[in-house]
Amino acid sequence: EIAELTADLFPNRALDGIKLRITAGPTREAIDPVRYISNHSSGKMGFALAAAAADAGAQVTLISGPVNLATPERVSRIDVSSAQDMYDASLADLQDCDIFIACAAVADYRPSEAVTQKIKKSADTLTLTLVRNPDIVSSVANSPQRPFTVGFAAETQDVLHYARDKLQRKKLDMIIANDVANTDIGFNSDDNRVVALWNGGEHAFDTMSKAQLSRRLIALIAEHFRTERD
Amino acid sequence: EIAELTADLFPNRALDGIKLRITAGPTREAIDPVRYISNHSSGKMGFALAAAAADAGAQVTLISGPVNLATPERVSRIDVSSAQDMYDASLADLQDCDIFIACAAVADYRPSEAVTQKIKKSADTLTLTLVRNPDIVSSVANSPQRPFTVGFAAETQDVLHYARDKLQRKKLDMIIANDVANTDIGFNSDDNRVVALWNGGEHAFDTMSKAQLSRRLIALIAEHFRTERD
Repeated sequence: EIAELTADLFPNRALDGIKLRITAGPTREAIDPVRYISNHSSGKMGFALAAAAADAGAQVTLISGPVNLATPERVSRIDVSSAQDMYDASLADLQDCDIFIACAAVADYRPSEAVTQKIKKSADTLTLTLVRNPDIVSSVANSPQRPFTVGFAAETQDVLHYARDKLQRKKLDMIIANDVANTDIGFNSDDNRVVALWNGGEHAFDTMSKAQLSRRLIALIAEHFRTERD
Repeated sequence: EIAELTADLFPNRALDGIKLRITAGPTREAIDPVRYISNHSSGKMGFALAAAAADAGAQVTLISGPVNLATPERVSRIDVSSAQDMYDASLADLQDCDIFIACAAVADYRPSEAVTQKIKKSADTLTLTLVRNPDIVSSVANSPQRPFTVGFAAETQDVLHYARDKLQRKKLDMIIANDVANTDIGFNSDDNRVVALWNGGEHAFDTMSKAQLSRRLIALIAEHFRTERD
């Protein structure tokens, strides 16, 4: 308890010199010049993690979808819009990345073709064909220059079951699961409650502010990163 | 010129006691609990019009989709999310509305059914069936207690042609047209350039700040409203 309190007050620089990349926020997939598909995500959790990682001494690159948040101090920010843009920024120069945290709410699907002129309302119904976007966190985890890779799982049911399946299927080192059916936490809230899962273990965090939770998560990630690397 | 300058400095209270309703921002149409369809709209133009109308003495109700903007002084705000919510708020107690300005970028279509659980990524392609949303500005303009009704037309081509067609088809009193293919103005910009069209006339405004443009537009709307009512 006291150790946890002091950890909050005196960051231990557990990530000194470590290159860390975080994705945050939603993506936008263009239907036409005025319409798009997106996901609920304020970006607050990813931005809080970026701030906590920078406080722990990491060189942080924050790859952010469209959000209304100020860039944390000592964090490099790359703004992107579509999942493909986020994929490109995430996979670029991966040899320069020690830890990758995929916190963004990436659109799984995009319209099969974005039209360059606004679609006119003529029909009563409209059929939109969507195709899969590249899976960013899986691509990172399965790349030759594989960093320590942490994913997020926002689920509305069977949260831990889906999260552990995703951890193994995508070959992640850790996954942070939260139940987005609970409207008190997650998404646009300042608080969050999550469970961190890894091969052979898990840790359930209490509900707390995203800032505080981020410091705990960064400490946990740093610990597992060091163990895996040693 | 001097008249225009002084009009900016000394609002003429042209809408004293007039009840005015403005829609602003985008709408969000749920695909499932985490995904939605939306439109590019910062809400800045609608919020600027609400502020200008309140300055001109109107009792302003601002019906706003999800935006990151502070409510202007002396303006009542109703927050909505979907086009159906915006429709309901817009059509309610329409006898208490003298002027209606539809500035929101309403989603024309919504998914035919929003699913309550997050859709799992299984298929390589996904077909989304969209159905038409109710046409808010047309419903207002064609209602028995018809207020003076102003629409907006955001177009990417043949802007004036489509705008005049929309003015007549929807039986609007005025339409404000802008070319959203021009990325310097409109959408998320602080500036805008528009053309106001009505039956038998039009006025092209220079590019100017949304605040300044709003004062000019409110003055023009007040003038036409008075003429029509007298």
